[in-house]
Amino acid sequence: MRVFGIDCGTEITGFGVVETDESARLPKLEMKAMGAIRLAKSKNTSQRLEEVFRQLTAELERWQPDVVAIEEVFYSVNAKSALKLGQVRGVALLAAACQKLPVAEYAPLKIKSSVVGYGLAKKEQVQYMVARLLHLETVPEPADAADALAIAICHIHTAQTLLAQGVGR
Amino acid sequence: MRVFGIDCGTEITGFGVVETDESARLPKLEMKAMGAIRLAKSKNTSQRLEEVFRQLTAELERWQPDVVAIEEVFYSVNAKSALKLGQVRGVALLAAACQKLPVAEYAPLKIKSSVVGYGLAKKEQVQYMVARLLHLETVPEPADAADALAIAICHIHTAQTLLAQGVGR
Repeated sequence: MRVFGIDCGTEITGFGVVETDESARLPKLEMKAMGAIRLAKSKNTSQRLEEVFRQLTAELERWQPDVVAIEEVFYSVNAKSALKLGQVRGVALLAAACQKLPVAEYAPLKIKSSVVGYGLAKKEQVQYMVARLLHLETVPEPADAADALAIAICHIHTAQTLLAQGVGR
Repeated sequence: MRVFGIDCGTEITGFGVVETDESARLPKLEMKAMGAIRLAKSKNTSQRLEEVFRQLTAELERWQPDVVAIEEVFYSVNAKSALKLGQVRGVALLAAACQKLPVAEYAPLKIKSSVVGYGLAKKEQVQYMVARLLHLETVPEPADAADALAIAICHIHTAQTLLAQGVGR
């Protein structure tokens, strides 16, 4: 299974591709790619959204994932930030839909506890554990790319747990 | 000038196309099209966003407007609604960007006062005035389409005011 994680942000949107071989006895996680799409401040909103869409579409076409994993709605932000974040999120979901890819959504708490084992883990702890789980020599940067990898890992862990429990067999 | 107004909503997104001939001594507003994109509840979020994108893109290609007009961020909604609305808005802005169209944004108060002459006008008043200004025999339905026409009219009124003031000459 190859998972494309997306961490949407109003200034930087991170992405990360994680693969696992489910047929192996001890499935190993492998990072295939990671990156961050930084939005040019000189551009207006619609041009920035187009940039996110085009770059995400290019990465999805390049990496051909089985599924896209994305962070669930985060409610505690204010309405203004939520609307801006929603615009980026809408474009990311659209990019997945245009590639006919299923989308899995995970709450921030669930992602952190799946990767670090603790739902209120700090950003640095997430980066450290992502590096360990993916056998990376350095901590993934920027944090947005590490978060995207964490979302992808969360999806793989969740799928493995469901499989172990016999769900979906 | 041909203006494509969009009224984004989490369930229904209205659109309306209004044209004016600026060379005429008394520019008349003409409605070219209006409609509403209703989102199927059976579909998931990314499929619904794809539907909005495809339908808006088809209408933009059909009507070839000079500009897209859209309601500005509405801050008083809660963060959850704002994020959902933002997703639709992001896709609408993307549709405009993909057609290389400029986007003008107007605050709800500005739209209502431009069409009704009163910023706190009710929905029915907006519908009534949109019908009068566009010489329609019946009130435009649904209200989402009327709102989209109101946004387009607001853009034309604003452009005419700027022209009368000598801005942009």
